[in-house]
Amino acid sequence: MAISKPSIPKGTRDFSAEQVSKRNFIFDTIRRVFTMYGFQPLETPAMENLSVLTGKYGEEGDQLLFKIINSGNFLADVTPDDIAAGTKKVLPKIAEKGLRYDLTVPFARYVVMNRSELTLPFKRYQIQPVWRADRPQKGRYREFYQCDADVVGTQSLLCEVEIVSMIIQTLRLLGINDYTIKLNNRKILAGIAQAVGVAGKETALCVAIDKLDKIGREKVEEELIQNNFSRDAIAKLQPIFELKGNHDDKLMALQQIFENTSPIGLKGVEEINSLFNLLEVAQINIDTLQLDLTLARGLGYYTGAIFEVKVNNVQIGSISGGGRYDNLTGTFGLEGVPGVGFSFGVDRIYDVMNELDLFPNTSKLRTDVVFTQFDKDSRNYLLPLLYQVREKGKSAEIYPDAVKIKKQLDYANAKNAQWVVLAGSQEMAEQKVTIKNMETGEQTVIPKENFINFIS
Amino acid sequence: MAISKPSIPKGTRDFSAEQVSKRNFIFDTIRRVFTMYGFQPLETPAMENLSVLTGKYGEEGDQLLFKIINSGNFLADVTPDDIAAGTKKVLPKIAEKGLRYDLTVPFARYVVMNRSELTLPFKRYQIQPVWRADRPQKGRYREFYQCDADVVGTQSLLCEVEIVSMIIQTLRLLGINDYTIKLNNRKILAGIAQAVGVAGKETALCVAIDKLDKIGREKVEEELIQNNFSRDAIAKLQPIFELKGNHDDKLMALQQIFENTSPIGLKGVEEINSLFNLLEVAQINIDTLQLDLTLARGLGYYTGAIFEVKVNNVQIGSISGGGRYDNLTGTFGLEGVPGVGFSFGVDRIYDVMNELDLFPNTSKLRTDVVFTQFDKDSRNYLLPLLYQVREKGKSAEIYPDAVKIKKQLDYANAKNAQWVVLAGSQEMAEQKVTIKNMETGEQTVIPKENFINFIS
Repeated sequence: MAISKPSIPKGTRDFSAEQVSKRNFIFDTIRRVFTMYGFQPLETPAMENLSVLTGKYGEEGDQLLFKIINSGNFLADVTPDDIAAGTKKVLPKIAEKGLRYDLTVPFARYVVMNRSELTLPFKRYQIQPVWRADRPQKGRYREFYQCDADVVGTQSLLCEVEIVSMIIQTLRLLGINDYTIKLNNRKILAGIAQAVGVAGKETALCVAIDKLDKIGREKVEEELIQNNFSRDAIAKLQPIFELKGNHDDKLMALQQIFENTSPIGLKGVEEINSLFNLLEVAQINIDTLQLDLTLARGLGYYTGAIFEVKVNNVQIGSISGGGRYDNLTGTFGLEGVPGVGFSFGVDRIYDVMNELDLFPNTSKLRTDVVFTQFDKDSRNYLLPLLYQVREKGKSAEIYPDAVKIKKQLDYANAKNAQWVVLAGSQEMAEQKVTIKNMETGEQTVIPKENFINFIS
Repeated sequence: MAISKPSIPKGTRDFSAEQVSKRNFIFDTIRRVFTMYGFQPLETPAMENLSVLTGKYGEEGDQLLFKIINSGNFLADVTPDDIAAGTKKVLPKIAEKGLRYDLTVPFARYVVMNRSELTLPFKRYQIQPVWRADRPQKGRYREFYQCDADVVGTQSLLCEVEIVSMIIQTLRLLGINDYTIKLNNRKILAGIAQAVGVAGKETALCVAIDKLDKIGREKVEEELIQNNFSRDAIAKLQPIFELKGNHDDKLMALQQIFENTSPIGLKGVEEINSLFNLLEVAQINIDTLQLDLTLARGLGYYTGAIFEVKVNNVQIGSISGGGRYDNLTGTFGLEGVPGVGFSFGVDRIYDVMNELDLFPNTSKLRTDVVFTQFDKDSRNYLLPLLYQVREKGKSAEIYPDAVKIKKQLDYANAKNAQWVVLAGSQEMAEQKVTIKNMETGEQTVIPKENFINFIS
């Protein structure tokens, strides 16, 4: 075995005890809210067949899939001609599986494979890592967690209301108070495409608009021109994206624009209006909700409401997003399964909470009681207590070696111990133990037989 | 997009809500015990560099690693000659990363990379999936979870005592009572090799003996002959493996055998003796513990105590196993880090608990309250209650569409609802709601304003 200095792959991370503990605070909070809203857990394998994954995320997405080399003689079917033809020819011959890229496609695959056993509407949540061969950079990792909740089998806008409410409740429990839930509707975007005379090019329009925040208006206009949008159409877009006022004003203005130009646009306005009405009926505070007509979201499968959550005054991308789709499972041959879903990005929420110092102290790890040992006798004297104190529900450990007491106390400090227990020859002779309170430094000598009661 | 009938990769599984919930009962129990014993969590990435993984699991293990194709033009450095030379030549040029095969090597890698920040002894637990390209069969999967706990930085046998105790406590909490913890020591196996005159061939001996249970004595003997063990040596092995009596008798007999033949064997006997003594001092019940001189465990890095847990009267492999190693991190250039660790196999524990019907009812998922709707008015009337009842800590949902009430009740049943809430025109006129207890079938009509109190 050659000795090598080890490292981890670019864009991946180890999580220490403290980090795991903080992340679990986020996972547990999200899980609690999902459960409170009647969602039930699903877990799918890390690997999916490439036939399931490929073609679902656009050409760019296909490039970012991590592909797994077939076991055994993976070169069996590869010819020199294949090699000459390049990776596209070789890939399907050497790789059948890939790592999951998101949780939505595996969910759709699950629904299709298990449709006969599922009671619709089916509400599932899924908290698992996903992998993307993106160029790693600050806040963007190659392995990261998604927390998805989806309802399929209904077109009811109540589901959108529930999602808005889940976002509000989760962020409240996490202590994140200053944020904006941006809302739009794909039918409105389709309506705008119709209204400015580029109907049928909604996807190109959405993909470009989606980048407004990231690359700015000029670059987006360039992209639209490259996609054969006329300068006239682009000019017509401007006033629409600059509509002013509250959501009622914007919706009213859109209604007028769509009245004679776009039935689908009108439908979008109606959906958003209904959603706002339902939110009012449900008495949900919508101060954080903002109708943003430039919100597009890149993924092709959305067909109705779309939303995205940004924390105000923190330089980080959206921490949550989602939307409604008419036909999640169509690519797998099962038509007529509409639904709506959303996702929390735990890695970004973690960064936000760290930056704003929002993690509660209770997520700190500690060992309640650390036993020391001066020598074998001392060890044997204390050892039974170690097991008894755990029976009382306390976490406890004994320093494994009879090294200098200073070192053992340092260890107890590193484990945030509340109590340290010591027993020298005098304590043993008198059937007593010394207990040190690590917060106050105070030491108490008590009869050994009282120890368990003292600690409990 | 072509329409394909979707499937999942061989040897992988989806986990439904009920399965996730049962599995979480196991994970939570194990995590609770690990925490109680002062272990802290660590998580490492699914992908590791192949330079970290390769050569750590033997040639067979290397074959079973899932390797990930490099991003971009992965063929750039591959020549026709490479292809002709075969997979061994091509692999290093097209794959830098692989999926983790166990949790021990990533842990060793972590210790080496973070040695300056770690307080020794360092106690970590890790609960994550691993992947192996094994031929799938009943009870053997290509993706499965391991739950590892390791202590590094100490040679104290107290750690072995703690492991035995953790196994006993975990299985007690899970309700698994009829099992055997098999114990042996690699130094005893080395001693046996010395005593029968095959010193230096311990590894081949261990690998073969490890299969005694699976393939039987004859096949093991064949394997030993193939590895150039003399018939004489093999004959000498028999009486050792058939030593009778309790562990004291066996250890006494071994001591006599090793007295003039093997210092390392004597050391092994001494270690096992000390361990039994410590278990007695700690007042740990050792009824389930069995010294098994044929226990070898395949992995090369064990150097001291080894153990394995089998559930009696259930046809399934071991559900837990582990051992002591002198030099976990040596292959990464960091010498002198001894330690001891063990692992629970959750997938097998799950199968055992299902077979023995040990899962408690409390792991069942339910929505406390399901609201129905007859029409828009009924929906708007009940909607605010939905959000109020959640504030009381109850899980709740509303059926999203105003379909036939029968269908809505079926849904409530599928979600194991405790209460269903209905409001028709009469209830609304009188400012009341009807509450149906889904266990008894009983219906009560109460004033709407009393609803929240009633449910809480």
